[in-house]
Amino acid sequence: MFTMKPVAIVKSPYSDTTQIPRGLGARHKAEGIIQLNAELEEGLKDIEGFSHLYILWVFDRIDSVELCAHPPCDDRPHGVFATRSPKRPNAIGLTVVELIKRDGLCLHVRGVDMLDGTPVLDIKPYLSSIPMDQLRRGWLAEVEASHSGTKS
Amino acid sequence: MFTMKPVAIVKSPYSDTTQIPRGLGARHKAEGIIQLNAELEEGLKDIEGFSHLYILWVFDRIDSVELCAHPPCDDRPHGVFATRSPKRPNAIGLTVVELIKRDGLCLHVRGVDMLDGTPVLDIKPYLSSIPMDQLRRGWLAEVEASHSGTKS
Repeated sequence: MFTMKPVAIVKSPYSDTTQIPRGLGARHKAEGIIQLNAELEEGLKDIEGFSHLYILWVFDRIDSVELCAHPPCDDRPHGVFATRSPKRPNAIGLTVVELIKRDGLCLHVRGVDMLDGTPVLDIKPYLSSIPMDQLRRGWLAEVEASHSGTKS
Repeated sequence: MFTMKPVAIVKSPYSDTTQIPRGLGARHKAEGIIQLNAELEEGLKDIEGFSHLYILWVFDRIDSVELCAHPPCDDRPHGVFATRSPKRPNAIGLTVVELIKRDGLCLHVRGVDMLDGTPVLDIKPYLSSIPMDQLRRGWLAEVEASHSGTKS
């Protein structure tokens, strides 16, 4: 067992999960703030140089686990580890945000999909990407293809 | 405070951190296995469709925190949140691996940079990338540029 404690908190425009865009083609452009605990400020030195950050956070308002997940964009169930479902064995969320600016303890970011008040466990620099043409995206790509076929 | 428990364990060729490539230009091509706990097998359904996965894991052999980190490739210190240093307030590691194949509870992957026996907290599908030409990579890009200048 490992014990984790928050290093920061999310200030987000979302107070309810129904406000957060989800499903196919959802775009996360909302701006928010990652506010670090004051005693950790030294840990932010030089973070301004990075355009994107990984935010690791806790689904702190979820208290159930479903190994078989039901994503909103598909009527087929999928294993939780093949989805971003919040009902995970360890309720950790992972979001890539764009860093707009740093103001002391506050990281102003674009791309939040967390609720206001969400506890943050870690912040990491985003250093490299897998090229999109090298990615296979399983059931999600199938749903996107089927959706695109419906529209055309 | 949040309590996390391992969902899987890493089988890696590395038994000692000195064996793991680090620093500028380090390539992580080592193959390993993410072996899921048996009771969670249902959570892997359909994971075979994804070419890349995020692995969230614990630096379980680290017991110190340094807010001011000293990466191996630079002689300047940087804030821990602007580095991948293991001496973090919450000792969580994040690695993108390529999924080679699934065999029951075992995910055969390429790109492990964890020690053998490392506990895994979560597995997530890698769904999209920030294009490399949109990334700024701060102090790391500076070190790379300076290194490249030395070589030429």
